[in-house]
Amino acid sequence: MDFKQHDLSDDEIRRRAELYGPLGAAVRELIDAAIRTEVDDDTIRTATTQISDIAAGLRARQIDGAFGVRYNASGTGMAWGNAVVGLANGVAPPITLHYPPTGGTRAEFNLGAPYEGPPGCVHGGICMMVLDALLGSAAASDETAAYTGTITVRFLRPTMLFTPLTASAEVTERSGRKKIVRGSIADEHGDTVVAEGVFILPRETNARPLTSVDGSTRRAPG
Amino acid sequence: MDFKQHDLSDDEIRRRAELYGPLGAAVRELIDAAIRTEVDDDTIRTATTQISDIAAGLRARQIDGAFGVRYNASGTGMAWGNAVVGLANGVAPPITLHYPPTGGTRAEFNLGAPYEGPPGCVHGGICMMVLDALLGSAAASDETAAYTGTITVRFLRPTMLFTPLTASAEVTERSGRKKIVRGSIADEHGDTVVAEGVFILPRETNARPLTSVDGSTRRAPG
Repeated sequence: MDFKQHDLSDDEIRRRAELYGPLGAAVRELIDAAIRTEVDDDTIRTATTQISDIAAGLRARQIDGAFGVRYNASGTGMAWGNAVVGLANGVAPPITLHYPPTGGTRAEFNLGAPYEGPPGCVHGGICMMVLDALLGSAAASDETAAYTGTITVRFLRPTMLFTPLTASAEVTERSGRKKIVRGSIADEHGDTVVAEGVFILPRETNARPLTSVDGSTRRAPG
Repeated sequence: MDFKQHDLSDDEIRRRAELYGPLGAAVRELIDAAIRTEVDDDTIRTATTQISDIAAGLRARQIDGAFGVRYNASGTGMAWGNAVVGLANGVAPPITLHYPPTGGTRAEFNLGAPYEGPPGCVHGGICMMVLDALLGSAAASDETAAYTGTITVRFLRPTMLFTPLTASAEVTERSGRKKIVRGSIADEHGDTVVAEGVFILPRETNARPLTSVDGSTRRAPG
């Protein structure tokens, strides 16, 4: 895997985050609007053409392939294309991971129309995606890289859209090359989904801990 | 859960799919372009403003809340806002579920930049999201509704971006109110991720099987 090192200062990374962050946020707004719109057919057709034109304009100069995970000499990371936490990626839900001093990973969020599965509920697959990122980050939060082996997710009851949610995860056991990480998504009444993951430490590692310019991730969960 | 019935003909649903499908596809293109663009700062700022303006235009008339799962009198379903298979939802990866006559659910796909986790690889959470949808659809493909109880996902090796992938799932056991469903994601060398799900049949159900105007889903996986 190619963790690309770039010769960028922390200030330059911060400047770029202030450019790509709002772009990602605007795309996320558009995703929501496209699902919920009930404007007339011609307005939808015009919007479709305009969106394609903007995409073509942005593609006038673009990287080949995916964004990757980039970092600079001081270890500041940019996982901006990441499907769950990438600030430039419209697919990534509006979730910021935090690392409490007591350990583990935590996030508070509220999901809207683009994350729907059963009517009015968060898609089970979105719950799994969020928990995968949380557990992976918790597994790496002691700064020892680990690969995801197995994750088991138990759905206790529906997780609702448009509701304040909290997700958290922490390493609960270590044994040999294994770490067990447990986490959950909860609403004000308690857990809605719980997860347990087995993470495996590689025999040798040259992975390095990453810090993030926006505090959202110390490594690229994935 | 509110499965809304709408008084729309199959033709009208088809007409709307031909309107919202291209809108969703254009949004998906834009998500990809926003991650990969390297155009100059001013072009990015202009694009950001234009995208926000289009979103505001689409919001001039919009539904309150999420799209829901809608169907008409003949049982044709519209889960167009669904996070994994919704044709109007830019978050949904470019995956179409198929139902082979031999049973189960199957999909062939190829994921690009918006689905990245580790550099060059599909995000583990995206693999889980896809498998959740596949397993859920397979569990429902015998037309008995079932709730997702537990899903266990085992990551065997990285799943690569820009690579032809196949996912499949089928019910492998039934016992009492439980169904066991197994599935996997595979590349040309074999399975990369395998999953097993336990689905629970409700004691009573008024759920009805749905057909889809675009063949992508018989019920709304979620």
